[in-house]
Amino acid sequence: MKTAKISVALILHFVSIVVVFESLFMLLAVAVSFYYRESITCRFFLTFIGTLLFGVLLNILTRKKRYIEPSKRESFVIVSLGWILMGLVGTLPYLATQSIPQFTNAFFESISGFTTTGSSILADIELLPKSILFWRAETHWIGGMGIIVLVIAIMPFLKINGIYLFYSEISSVANEKVSTRIKNIARNLWLIYIGLTFVETILLWVGGMPLFDSVCHSFATIATGGFSTQNDSIAGYSPFVQYIIAFFMMMSGINFTVHFLMLNRKFKSALKNEELRLYLKIILFVGGIITLLLFFQHRELGFERAFRSSFFQVISIITATGFATADYLQWPVQAVGLIAILMLIGASSGSTGGGIKVIRHLIAFKKIRQGVTEIIYPNTVKVVRYNGKHIQKELVQNILTFIFFYYLIVAVGTFVMMFWTNDLATSFGAVATSMAGIGPGFGTVGPVSNFLHLPTGAKYFLALLMVVGRLEIYSLLVIFTPSFWRD
Amino acid sequence: MKTAKISVALILHFVSIVVVFESLFMLLAVAVSFYYRESITCRFFLTFIGTLLFGVLLNILTRKKRYIEPSKRESFVIVSLGWILMGLVGTLPYLATQSIPQFTNAFFESISGFTTTGSSILADIELLPKSILFWRAETHWIGGMGIIVLVIAIMPFLKINGIYLFYSEISSVANEKVSTRIKNIARNLWLIYIGLTFVETILLWVGGMPLFDSVCHSFATIATGGFSTQNDSIAGYSPFVQYIIAFFMMMSGINFTVHFLMLNRKFKSALKNEELRLYLKIILFVGGIITLLLFFQHRELGFERAFRSSFFQVISIITATGFATADYLQWPVQAVGLIAILMLIGASSGSTGGGIKVIRHLIAFKKIRQGVTEIIYPNTVKVVRYNGKHIQKELVQNILTFIFFYYLIVAVGTFVMMFWTNDLATSFGAVATSMAGIGPGFGTVGPVSNFLHLPTGAKYFLALLMVVGRLEIYSLLVIFTPSFWRD
Repeated sequence: MKTAKISVALILHFVSIVVVFESLFMLLAVAVSFYYRESITCRFFLTFIGTLLFGVLLNILTRKKRYIEPSKRESFVIVSLGWILMGLVGTLPYLATQSIPQFTNAFFESISGFTTTGSSILADIELLPKSILFWRAETHWIGGMGIIVLVIAIMPFLKINGIYLFYSEISSVANEKVSTRIKNIARNLWLIYIGLTFVETILLWVGGMPLFDSVCHSFATIATGGFSTQNDSIAGYSPFVQYIIAFFMMMSGINFTVHFLMLNRKFKSALKNEELRLYLKIILFVGGIITLLLFFQHRELGFERAFRSSFFQVISIITATGFATADYLQWPVQAVGLIAILMLIGASSGSTGGGIKVIRHLIAFKKIRQGVTEIIYPNTVKVVRYNGKHIQKELVQNILTFIFFYYLIVAVGTFVMMFWTNDLATSFGAVATSMAGIGPGFGTVGPVSNFLHLPTGAKYFLALLMVVGRLEIYSLLVIFTPSFWRD
Repeated sequence: MKTAKISVALILHFVSIVVVFESLFMLLAVAVSFYYRESITCRFFLTFIGTLLFGVLLNILTRKKRYIEPSKRESFVIVSLGWILMGLVGTLPYLATQSIPQFTNAFFESISGFTTTGSSILADIELLPKSILFWRAETHWIGGMGIIVLVIAIMPFLKINGIYLFYSEISSVANEKVSTRIKNIARNLWLIYIGLTFVETILLWVGGMPLFDSVCHSFATIATGGFSTQNDSIAGYSPFVQYIIAFFMMMSGINFTVHFLMLNRKFKSALKNEELRLYLKIILFVGGIITLLLFFQHRELGFERAFRSSFFQVISIITATGFATADYLQWPVQAVGLIAILMLIGASSGSTGGGIKVIRHLIAFKKIRQGVTEIIYPNTVKVVRYNGKHIQKELVQNILTFIFFYYLIVAVGTFVMMFWTNDLATSFGAVATSMAGIGPGFGTVGPVSNFLHLPTGAKYFLALLMVVGRLEIYSLLVIFTPSFWRD
C-alpha cells in the first residue's frame, strides 16, 4: 500500500471496469427485450452500446494504471464512487426507454436497486416492459455481488469495520498479494451466490412460477433486494412459492462464510457460529410471537396462514429484503412494534442483508451481561469472546459506537425527513428502511404503498441514506472529511 | 469492605434510618395541615407517629449494627430497598387521609415522587388538601437529596457507573474513612441543594406566587421532579415566574460538583466542564429550533411567547423535571420529534435530573469522531479524553453499553406496554418518561393528561421503570441476578 497522493486516473481505471461490467449485464436485459419482441429493444441496445463504449474508452485512457494497486485512501474513493456511479449508469435504461422518464425517480429506483434496498417509486410495476423488470432485478443482483465482496474481501484489507476481520479464514493461502487474495475470496463467494440463485430459480419454476418471474425473484431474493415483478409482491403466489422465497431470504441473510464452511463440509464449525444461532433464534422468537398475535386477534386466518404470514414478513424485514405477502401496517400494534425493532437489528454480517447486523447486537448483549458480573465480581477478567475468540477492546468499542452512530443517523434523519413529510411514522419508516436497505417502511411508505409521492429532496436524501447504510456508514463518511483529502 | 454474608439486620438498620428521616418530613406536612386547619390533621399526625415509632423500633432492634460499615453487596440492597421502601412508606399519607384511596395509585404517585419523576394519577390536583400537596412536593425533594448523594458520594465507592469517579475532587481530605467521606460530600451537596431551593422560593414569592406554592414549586424544581400545585402546572403563572422556574430547572440539571466548584470560586475549572458546555449547547440549539418552528407556524404567538414556551418545555424535558407551560403534543411534528430525542438524552450526570445523561452522549460523540480519524490514520493513539483526563477503555465500553442497554429497555418496555395500551405513542412516551424520570409522555399521557386511566399492571410496570432509571439500571438490576446472592 502506498501513502502517496490520490491518483484520479487510477480511480477512473477501476470505475471503468465497473462500467464495462455493468454494460454486460445491460446486454442480458437487451436480450430479454429482444426475446419478448419489445418496442424498446433498439433504444435499450443503443444504451448498452453507449455505456460499453464509455467504459472501454475510460479503461483505455487510464490503462497505464492497470497493474497498480490502489492505496487505502484510493480504495475508499473507488468503493464510494463506484456505488454511486453504478446507480447513475443504472438510470440509463429507465431514462432511455422512458419507463421512468424523470431523472430523480430513475436515480432513486436505480440506487434502491444497487443498494439492494427495494424501495420503489413505481405505482404500477406490471405496466413495465419485461426487459426493464429484468434490469431492476439485475441491479439488485449486481449490488448483492458487490456488497459481499466489499465486506468479506475488501473491508478487512481496508481495516475498517473490524467485525469482518473474522472472515480471514475463507482464503486458504496466506501471504498472497492483496489483489489475488481478494480475487480468490470473491470467486468462492460468487460461486455460492450464483449457486443459491440457480437453485431458487429452479425451485420457484417447479413451484409453478413462470421462468422469467422465477429468475427475477431469485435475483431479488439472494441479493435481499425486494423488487418484484408483481404489484402485490409475493402475495399472489402459492404457499409453496412463499415458503421457498422465505427460505432463500433466510439463507441470504446468513454470513456467506458460513455457507462456505458448509460447502466444505465443516458443519460443526458452521453451526457453532454464534451470530448464526442468534439470527435464527430472533427469527423463531419474533416470528413465533407475531404468529400468536395474528392467530388470536385474527382467528379467521387460521394457524397456517398466521404462521406463514408472520414468518414471511419477519424474515423479509430482518434480512432487509422487503418482499411482502401481507401489509404489516394492518397487524396488531405490538406486531408493528416488533417489525420496527427488526428494522433496526438487521441481518448477519457478511451476508447481502443490511442494517446494524446481528453480530453487533450479540457483542452488545455480551457486554451488558458482563456489566452485571463486573459489579458483583470487580476483579474478574473482562474479555469478550466471539466464536471462542477473544475480541479486542478497541473492536468492542467500535461496535458499540457503530450502533450508537446508526441510531443517531436514524434519529437525525427522521427529524430532517419530517420537514418533507410532516409525519413521524412515515419519516422514521422511510429513514430506517433506507438505512438498512429493506424497502417498505411505515405510514405512507408501507408495504402496499410506494415512494413516488415524496418530494424530490426527500428522494435524494433517502438515496443517500441507502448508500450510507450499504457502505456501513464509515466507508462513505470518511471521504467527506477534510482530513481525508489533506496530504 | 467485608465480603461476608449479607446481614439482614445491618440492612434493616440502614432502612430504619430512612424511615425515621422520612417521618420527620411527614411532621413538616402535618405542621402545614395544622396551620391550614385541615380536617385531616389528626389522621396525618397519627400516620407520622406510626411511621416514626416503626422506624425507631426497627432502629433499636438493629442497633448493635450501628457502627458497622455495609459491604458492597449490602450497599446495593440498602440503596434499592431504601428507594422502594421510601415509596411504600410515602403512600401512608395518601392512604390514611383518603386523598388517594387505592393502593396502586398511591404507590404510583409516591414512587413517581421519590424518583423525582412527576407523573401523576391525579386528575384534579387542586382538590387536594394543602398538606398533601406539600407532601407530594416533599417526596420530590427527599428523592432529589437522595439521588445526589447516591450518585456523587455512594456510587463511586461502589465502583459502578464509572462516570461518577470523576467527582472524587469534591471531597477535600483523601484517605478518610468511607462513611466520613460520604458524609462530608453529602453535607457540601446538601448545602448547595438547600441554598438553591431557598433562593428560588424567595424569587418566586417576590415574583407574585403565594409562599406556599413557591415552596412546593421550588422543592419540585430543584429535585427536577415536576409535581405542581396547579392543574395547569406552570401555565397560569406570569412570564417572570416561568423564566425563574426555567432558570432553576436548568441549574438543577447541572452537575452539582460544578456548583460546588463555582461556590469555591473555581470558575475557570467549572466553565471548562465539557458536559456543562454540551448541555447548554443542546438547550440553546434545540430551544432555538423549536422557537423558530413555533414562531413561523404559529405567528399569533409572537416571538417572546414562542421563545418562552420553547425554552421552558425544552429545559423541563432535558432536565427531566416535567413542568409544563404548553402542550407540546400540539406543536409542529418536528418539535415533537425533538422532544422525544430530548427525553432520551437526559440531564447532566451528578444532577437531580434523569435519563442517559449528557456525558455519556459526549463520550459516544467523541468515539464517533475518533472512528473516522482511525480509518484515515490507523496508527494514531486512540485515547478518549474528558475534561483533559484520559478515560480508560473499560469505562468507554461501559458508557456505550449503558446507552445501548437503556435503549433496549425502552424498546422492550414499549413493546410490553403496548399490551396494556394498544398504542405505540402512549407506550413509548410512558416508558421513556418513566425511565428518565420526566413526567409527561406522548399519546394519552401527554402534558395535559395524567396516568390514572392506565391499567393496574401498567402502573406497577412504570413505577418499576422509574426506579430502574433512577438507580441507573445496574444498581437495581444487580440484586436480581442469582450470582449476587451466591456466597
